[in-house]
Formats: sequence, C-alpha cells, structure tokens
Amino acid sequence: MSSTEGQVIRCKAAVSWEAGKPLVIEEVEVAPPQKMEVRVKILFTSLCHTDVYFWEAKGQTPLFPRIFGHEAGGIVESVGEGVTDLKPGDHVLPVFTGECKECRHCKSSESNMCDLLRINTERGAMIEDGKTRFSKDGKPIHHFLGTSTFSEYTVVHVGCLAKINPSAPLDIVCVLSCGISTGLGATLNVAKPTKGSTVAIFGLGAVGLAAAEGARISGATRIIGVDLNPSRFNEAKKFGVTEFVNPKNYDKPVQEVIAEMTDGGVDRSIECTGNVNAMISAFECVHDGWGVAVLVGVPNKDDAFKTHPVNLLNERTLKGTFFGNYKPRSDIPNVVEKYMNKELELDPILGDKQSF
Amino acid sequence: MSSTEGQVIRCKAAVSWEAGKPLVIEEVEVAPPQKMEVRVKILFTSLCHTDVYFWEAKGQTPLFPRIFGHEAGGIVESVGEGVTDLKPGDHVLPVFTGECKECRHCKSSESNMCDLLRINTERGAMIEDGKTRFSKDGKPIHHFLGTSTFSEYTVVHVGCLAKINPSAPLDIVCVLSCGISTGLGATLNVAKPTKGSTVAIFGLGAVGLAAAEGARISGATRIIGVDLNPSRFNEAKKFGVTEFVNPKNYDKPVQEVIAEMTDGGVDRSIECTGNVNAMISAFECVHDGWGVAVLVGVPNKDDAFKTHPVNLLNERTLKGTFFGNYKPRSDIPNVVEKYMNKELELDPILGDKQSF
Ligand SMILES: NC(=O)c1ccc[n+]([C@@H]2O[C@H](COP(=O)([O-])OP(=O)(O)OC[C@H]3O[C@@H](n4cnc5c(N)ncnc54)[C@H](O)[C@@H]3O)[C@@H](O)[C@H]2O)c1
Ligand SMILES: NC(=O)c1ccc[n+]([C@@H]2O[C@H](COP(=O)([O-])OP(=O)(O)OC[C@H]3O[C@@H](n4cnc5c(N)ncnc54)[C@H](O)[C@@H]3O)[C@@H](O)[C@H]2O)c1
Ligand SMILES: [Zn+2]
Ligand SMILES: [Zn+2]
Ligand SMILES: [Zn+2]
Ligand SMILES: [Zn+2]
Repeated sequence: MSSTEGQVIRCKAAVSWEAGKPLVIEEVEVAPPQKMEVRVKILFTSLCHTDVYFWEAKGQTPLFPRIFGHEAGGIVESVGEGVTDLKPGDHVLPVFTGECKECRHCKSSESNMCDLLRINTERGAMIEDGKTRFSKDGKPIHHFLGTSTFSEYTVVHVGCLAKINPSAPLDIVCVLSCGISTGLGATLNVAKPTKGSTVAIFGLGAVGLAAAEGARISGATRIIGVDLNPSRFNEAKKFGVTEFVNPKNYDKPVQEVIAEMTDGGVDRSIECTGNVNAMISAFECVHDGWGVAVLVGVPNKDDAFKTHPVNLLNERTLKGTFFGNYKPRSDIPNVVEKYMNKELELDPILGDKQSF
Repeated sequence: MSSTEGQVIRCKAAVSWEAGKPLVIEEVEVAPPQKMEVRVKILFTSLCHTDVYFWEAKGQTPLFPRIFGHEAGGIVESVGEGVTDLKPGDHVLPVFTGECKECRHCKSSESNMCDLLRINTERGAMIEDGKTRFSKDGKPIHHFLGTSTFSEYTVVHVGCLAKINPSAPLDIVCVLSCGISTGLGATLNVAKPTKGSTVAIFGLGAVGLAAAEGARISGATRIIGVDLNPSRFNEAKKFGVTEFVNPKNYDKPVQEVIAEMTDGGVDRSIECTGNVNAMISAFECVHDGWGVAVLVGVPNKDDAFKTHPVNLLNERTLKGTFFGNYKPRSDIPNVVEKYMNKELELDPILGDKQSF
C-alpha cells in the first residue's frame, strides 16, 4: 500500500488554461480514484496531433482549463472501489478509448467501440460522478480523453488501462497507446493482407509507418508508400516500404498511377492521412474482385467520402477502423509482447516522436 | 450426336430491330458453335429489367438488331472445338457473366469477375472471332450479354454455362441464372449474417426477395423489408420478412427509423433497389462496430455514393457484389442442388416472374 493512497496528491502538471495559449506547468491537486478508477503515476508521455487539435479548439466546444495528453506509460499508484484487475505497482498504458467488458461491443469479437468508454472528446470529467479529479486552488481542471497524461499523476477509468508486461521499457512501449497501435491494427486486424500481397499505405506519418510495419509482418511483397512529402520516404524504407509514389509528380489521379503499377490495383490499402481525397484514392486503387481499403485518418467535420457505386459493385470492400480495432485491455498487452518478442519493430518510429 | 451438329439451324427468335420498338418473332439462322462455344436449345427464358434497359437503349451505344434475353434454361445441342465439360443433352443455365477458370479472378476464392468473360453489355459478338452466330438473310444480328436467350437456339461461350442436375425442373431453376442468385448470394456469400441477427433488405423486387430468403436460410431473427411500394410487403412475408418500413411514412431518413427500431442499427443490410439514396441509407443503417452493408442494385451512370467518413471509421463495412459473388460454373450447380434439397424456396418468387 502506497503512503499516498486515499490522499489528495499534489504534483506538477502542464495545464492548458486557454485555447491555443502555451501550457503552464502548475502544481495541481489530484483526488483519489473513485469507484472503478485508478490513479496512475505517469512516467512517459508523448504529444500527438489530437492533443494539439483540441488545444487549438477550433471548431469544437472549448473546455478549459484542461490537462491534455493521451499517449503515455505509467505505474498504478492506487485503485478505487471495485477495481480487481489492477493493483499498485502494475505497469499500465492509459488508452483514449476503453473496454468495459460488458456492453454489446465489448462482447462482440468484431468491435472495440465500447458503449461506456468509447472515445469522447467532449467529456471533461469522470463518468462516475461527472466531476474532475484535478483541481488547482479548489478550481476544477478538465480531463481530456479520459487520460490527461500531461501530469505526474492522473486518474483513469480502469477500462482505459492496459496492464502490460512489467519488463517492457515504458519509454518505448508508451507509443503503443495511440497512433502506432492504430496503424498496426488497421493492417493486422482489419486489412489482413495475405503473404505475397501488394499493399498501399497512404500517409507516412507515425500511423502510416506502423501500418507499413503491419504489412511487413504479414509478409506483403510490395508495400507502396504514398505521401505528398518526399522527405517521408527515407523513414519509410526502414519499415519495409518498397516503392514510393508522390501524387504531386503525376498529372493523373494517384489511383490510376497505382493501378498501372500493379496490373489493376493493390490487394489492400490503408489510408493514414486524414485527407478525404486520399481516402477516395485509397479506396479506388484497390483491385476489383478482392481489394480491401481501410480508412484510419480522422477527416474534417464537413468532408464527404464520394465514389461511384460501381466501384463497390465491382467487389471492392471499404472499411474503417478506430484504434486499429484493438480492445485496449484484452489486446494491447499482446501487442507489447510482440515488441518484446522482436516480432514488432518500434525503434525507428520512436526516432520520429517528440517526447513530452 | 444430334442431326443438326455442324449445321446452321433455322429457328424462331424474338429480334429487336430498333431501340424501344416491339420485338419481332423472326426465323433466324444460328451458326454452329466455334472454339470453346456451345449451342444450346433454350426451353425457358424470362424477362429481366436489364433486357428492357438495353432494349430502350437510353444512354448506351445502341447495338441493333439484337437478340436479348439472359435468364434461361436449356439443353446442349452441340459443342465446338475444345469443349470438354459439356456434351449434347446436358442441362444448362446460361449466365450473363462467365468463368474461364484461368484468370486471376477465377483463381481467387474471393472474386467472380472473370477477366475474359465478365459481363460486357457493349459486346454484341462472340469473343472467338468478333462475329455473331445469329443472322437473318445474311445480315448479322447482335448478341446480348453473351446469352441471347430470346431464341430457340443460341450460341454461348462454355464459360457462361452452368451444368446442372438434369432432374431439376428447368422452368423453375432457370430463374437462378440472374437476379435470384444475385440476391441470394449477396446475403449468403457477402453479407453472411449469423444466426439470430437482424437484417434489413432495401427493395423487395425479385432480387430483394431472394436476399431475404438468404437471410431466412442464415437464421436471421429479424428481417426488415424496406420498400417505397407497400404492395411488395405481402409478397415479402412469404420469404420470412418480419417487419416492414416504408420510407414515405416518415419525416426522417429511413436509416434513423431503422436505428431506432434496432437499438443502433442492423447487423447486415442488403440494398436491392438501384437507387443511390437507398444505397446510402442501407449503409448508414448498419450498426457501428460490426455492421456490414452490401450493395447489389445497379446505379445510374452519374450517381455518387456519398457518406461522412466517420460512418466508416466507426467500424462499418461497405461492400458490393456482382451476381452474388457466385462463380457460374463452380457455384450455380450447387445452388440448384439447394433448391432440389428444399433448402431454398423459389416457388413464391416465381409467382412474381413473367415468362417469355
Ligand atoms: N482512427 C484512429 O483511431 C486514429 C488514431 C490516431 C491517429 N489517427 C489519424 O491518423 C492520421 C495519421 O496520423 P499521423 O499521426 O501519422 O499524422 P501525420 O500528420 O504525422 O502523417 C500524415 C501524413 O500524410 C501525408 N498526407 C497528407 N495528405 C495526403 C494526401 N492527400 N496524399 C498523400 N499523403 C498525404 C502527410 O504528408 C503526412 O506525412 C491522422 O488523421 C490522425 O488523426 C486515427
Ligand atoms: N449486381 C448484380 O449482379 C445484379 C443482378 C441482377 C439485378 N441487379 C439489380 O438489382 C436491383 C433490383 O432488381 P429487381 O429485379 O429486384 O428490381 P425491381 O424493380 O423488381 O425491385 C426494386 C424494388 O426497389 C424498390 N425501391 C426503389 N427505390 C427505392 C428506395 N429508394 N427505397 C426503397 N425501395 C426502393 C421498388 O419499389 C421495387 O420494389 C436492380 O437495380 C437490378 O439492376 C443487380
Ligand atoms: Zn494520439
Ligand atoms: Zn464496453
Ligand atoms: Zn437479369
Ligand atoms: Zn476467368
């Protein structure tokens, strides 16, 4: 039992007081975990686009002050009532979406979109009582994505914590709590390329590189990286990307370029850009008869995915995924094991990540 | 060996001399089958929307004179060079799309879109020599969909003929050569509902009824029929449709009506209308996390399928199918067997079909 159990902890956190204004390192109070909650000491956290997006708060309801951060690794400090899966000292990755293990989604083998703990960017408090566990001088500070990892201590619903192998290096595997698992799972769980197949990856950021790594693990023979930024190509070679296409270098739509390179289209494509035109190209570049396209990128509010229905009737499949279809508690510990067994390459991706 | 083998056969056919003008029953000449071709005596043929569409020839290159017809059953009269699978006397269903058994599609377990014999509405002649086998007083008459079954005799590529159980009643199973197999296969081969699931069928024409029959065979508990025409509902009850929705009776989009009826959406939906708005509704009414929508209807040239990408990211799957993903030669004989074993109900559908 830790000496802080049941006590308010005073610690440092990076507080965002106003949209778009620099975060301020403050001393905050972190209340003890309530029913089904866990207080976690955060050891490593990184910065993801989603944090920036909601910190800028253009187009969403602003919710400030707030503590951002959702890609992280830490150690359980104490647990609230009803928590039986975790105990102080356990190594955990907080995840922006959860797994209650009881709803229809959690019981379905196909879905990870938990009814209770599904990502909710508008919620700034805990589910249990609608209150925050963070405060400064009595003034509540909002949570973000149920994780708020830009703090030395945070309180997270037990359903949003993956308990991982304690010998896994937290500074590395913490990246598995967001984009890397998303890209990897998009390939391994959703696109499922077979050995010897041809895969196109649209967007070679961290998510796309992880998707490419998934294709490499699956034994894809040709992995075609598509990005508007040619500086991404060098990085991508480390993940087994074999060919590169920059849509800017062609007069025709990139789906036609890819169809010509591949005798009619790729077997699988994974879109990791967030750009709706890339989504359409990613769909239309898969081979008729058997091609599967998977959308991963988060689009703008008013984007419309548009295609001629004949592209579907010609037996193409279009899917999307959220967090790579991984269930945080059931599946992420196994992804960490894949890294520990050296089945999964993470080090070159890390070269690319900023640390908080 | 039939006495007509190797000879030109003179027989009756319904010839379409001009777009939109009544068909004329004429005596025509039918040349002997060439390499990989089969001459078939047609015993039963029915009329499908696609015949009407190309007879009207609005928006396509008109190709006249032409012999229409593609849903039929017949008996092999003679075979051309290289045909080893069929012999005179075999019972066959001609199919508007083929299976060469050699291309990438035919070798893939997922696709039935044969590179050589895939449906081609613009082709009015045989592949072997680019010539027609039909003529009248020396003037060639075009083929349609490689089948041209509005004739007592027709010549068909061997790859477009399903050899079926000779004890199957040809007047009934002939409907399996087009829409019925399409609807049935859309459910059984593509949507694949599991036992106890909820399925929505958009459009309750022959194709939709067959899709509903597929859902019944699969053990779906709730089968929701959606049609603008309430007179279709009575018919549909015979195929196990349990509930009906007429979009005209509601102020809100039908996908919202269905989501309310089903606690978030159906497990599977199959669109059999050809209307692009119905396609969008059919997609958006499936449950997030695991829902699969299958498009079957043939859209208009300029239609665009449009949806917000978030509907995909929420783990819905969108697919389309062509002839229910059945391979004509490999699979249709088994569908006929399903009818023979009484696993498949066809009689109520037939009540609905016009015979030629
Ligand atoms: N679905 C999920 O659960 C989930 C989780 C994490 C991230 N994401 C999303 O995944 C996407 C990728 O994330 P990231 O961190 O790798 O982003 P990133 O910005 O690092 O990488 C995106 C890459 O796409 C390229 N790109 C942009 N438009 C393009 C176009 N039209 N064609 C080709 N390339 C194009 C950019 O040059 C860039 O290299 C984002 O939209 C992010 O929001 C989704
Ligand atoms: N993909 C293939 O291989 C294939 C094969 C055969 C037929 N088809 C297509 O399948 C579709 C159905 O064929 P069918 O013979 O059953 O046609 P049909 O005209 O007999 O039936 C269509 C039904 O859809 C209903 N409908 C039309 N618009 C609707 C809407 N917006 N909402 C709800 N219901 C609507 C109509 O009232 C009608 O009852 C057609 O588009 C046809 O071209 C496709
Ligand atoms: Zn993230
Ligand atoms: Zn749940
Ligand atoms: Zn037809
Ligand atoms: Zn073929």
